[in-house]
Amino acid sequence: MSSFTAAIIVIGDEILSGRTQDTNSNFMAKNLLQEGIKLEEVVIIKDDKQTIIDRVLNYSKKYSYVFTTGGIGPTHDDITSESISSAFNLECVINHEAFKILNNYYPKGEFNESRQRMSKMPIGSDLILNPMTAAPGFKIKNVYVLPGVPEIMQVMFLELIKKLKKGKPKIVTTINTNLYESKIANFLKDIQDKYKDSSIGSYPYFNLVAKTGGVNIVVSSWNMTSIQPVVDDIVNMIKLNGGKSSIV
Amino acid sequence: MSSFTAAIIVIGDEILSGRTQDTNSNFMAKNLLQEGIKLEEVVIIKDDKQTIIDRVLNYSKKYSYVFTTGGIGPTHDDITSESISSAFNLECVINHEAFKILNNYYPKGEFNESRQRMSKMPIGSDLILNPMTAAPGFKIKNVYVLPGVPEIMQVMFLELIKKLKKGKPKIVTTINTNLYESKIANFLKDIQDKYKDSSIGSYPYFNLVAKTGGVNIVVSSWNMTSIQPVVDDIVNMIKLNGGKSSIV
Repeated sequence: MSSFTAAIIVIGDEILSGRTQDTNSNFMAKNLLQEGIKLEEVVIIKDDKQTIIDRVLNYSKKYSYVFTTGGIGPTHDDITSESISSAFNLECVINHEAFKILNNYYPKGEFNESRQRMSKMPIGSDLILNPMTAAPGFKIKNVYVLPGVPEIMQVMFLELIKKLKKGKPKIVTTINTNLYESKIANFLKDIQDKYKDSSIGSYPYFNLVAKTGGVNIVVSSWNMTSIQPVVDDIVNMIKLNGGKSSIV
Repeated sequence: MSSFTAAIIVIGDEILSGRTQDTNSNFMAKNLLQEGIKLEEVVIIKDDKQTIIDRVLNYSKKYSYVFTTGGIGPTHDDITSESISSAFNLECVINHEAFKILNNYYPKGEFNESRQRMSKMPIGSDLILNPMTAAPGFKIKNVYVLPGVPEIMQVMFLELIKKLKKGKPKIVTTINTNLYESKIANFLKDIQDKYKDSSIGSYPYFNLVAKTGGVNIVVSSWNMTSIQPVVDDIVNMIKLNGGKSSIV
């Protein structure tokens, strides 16, 4: 088990209405795994102050890192910064470094009141720099606050993740087989019981037109030195059941 | 405000590891909105019994409908049915109708122990039929339990949603403008303050190569008869600020 855990809070009515497909959490999930940080939970919530406060407080206590996306722009529906300030009982104030960055970024006379709003954050926050559109995110306690626009979020996230304390990356191997899941279920369970430090996931797929299908079996472990014995047992079991397997 | 609310629980380590991008909640979100059911929250959790129990109990109390996806297949990592049984303190038993459906579906002699497992669910459940691969989902109390494979989930969800009690659909109009978000933020806030029964969302986008961008402004309401006055005010405001607008 990695000793570093994380949760993601996706903030935005546009995700809950189905208007926007969230891809930010999948991007973060992949990168966290590679960095040895165990993503435990993702929640998608609406633009509502009390909901944001509740989730931030709960996750901040439970996990090593909390990442939020969305709600830090200049408009009335951007309430992430003030909500997180309230969550930690901190004043929401203009961050002078952020103010300076934004003031430099906009043409003279265009750094208006709405844009200035983007420099407000909980007192004592550290900035997360935004090399694309200037408006920074911030870190307060173990909460990392990022924008919702994927292209911008991704660049900022990849930069910030370099600085985090991490664990050993998870080892993962995926085995594909043409056998149906239910044919091998009992054998897989036995192998899972034998190697308790590994986790064996079974993901069936179907091609409903060609009427074919199979399973991707994902073997992973946070703390084994090698998962080769588990993989070997599974490949062997597939063979004994008359199936084909390949490492994907 | 629609009087019917919903939450989605996405169950699966494969989503949290980033291996699979969840698209099920987006599909459900769009359809719930059209049906007048307000999606309040989505959570993605791991294949862990206590986590499933906690979330199901919490959401089942809070919302009109709870939908779960994932974890109802034949393998050892499919623990949704037993977890939901435990959540409601109900026995997890073979549902005879489900057993019969599965027994008919598989070739003689192939309805093995693992496959039989798919007919187990909380006692007193109603089946949610699966026209594609037979294995049914189920409804217990206000919780609707669906598979994770998108093609199968979608067909089952569209069928079951027909039978739910629903509210008036949300009215939604999206206005696109070439103006930047921060230019119109203050005016949008004034319009939002004027029409408190509507919700105005502001979603900027950037084309970082062409260095252009703009905003999609989404006006919506659960209970206004018409949102045309809000839309007119916004279109007018954009014009006064020298921008272009179109309804998208």
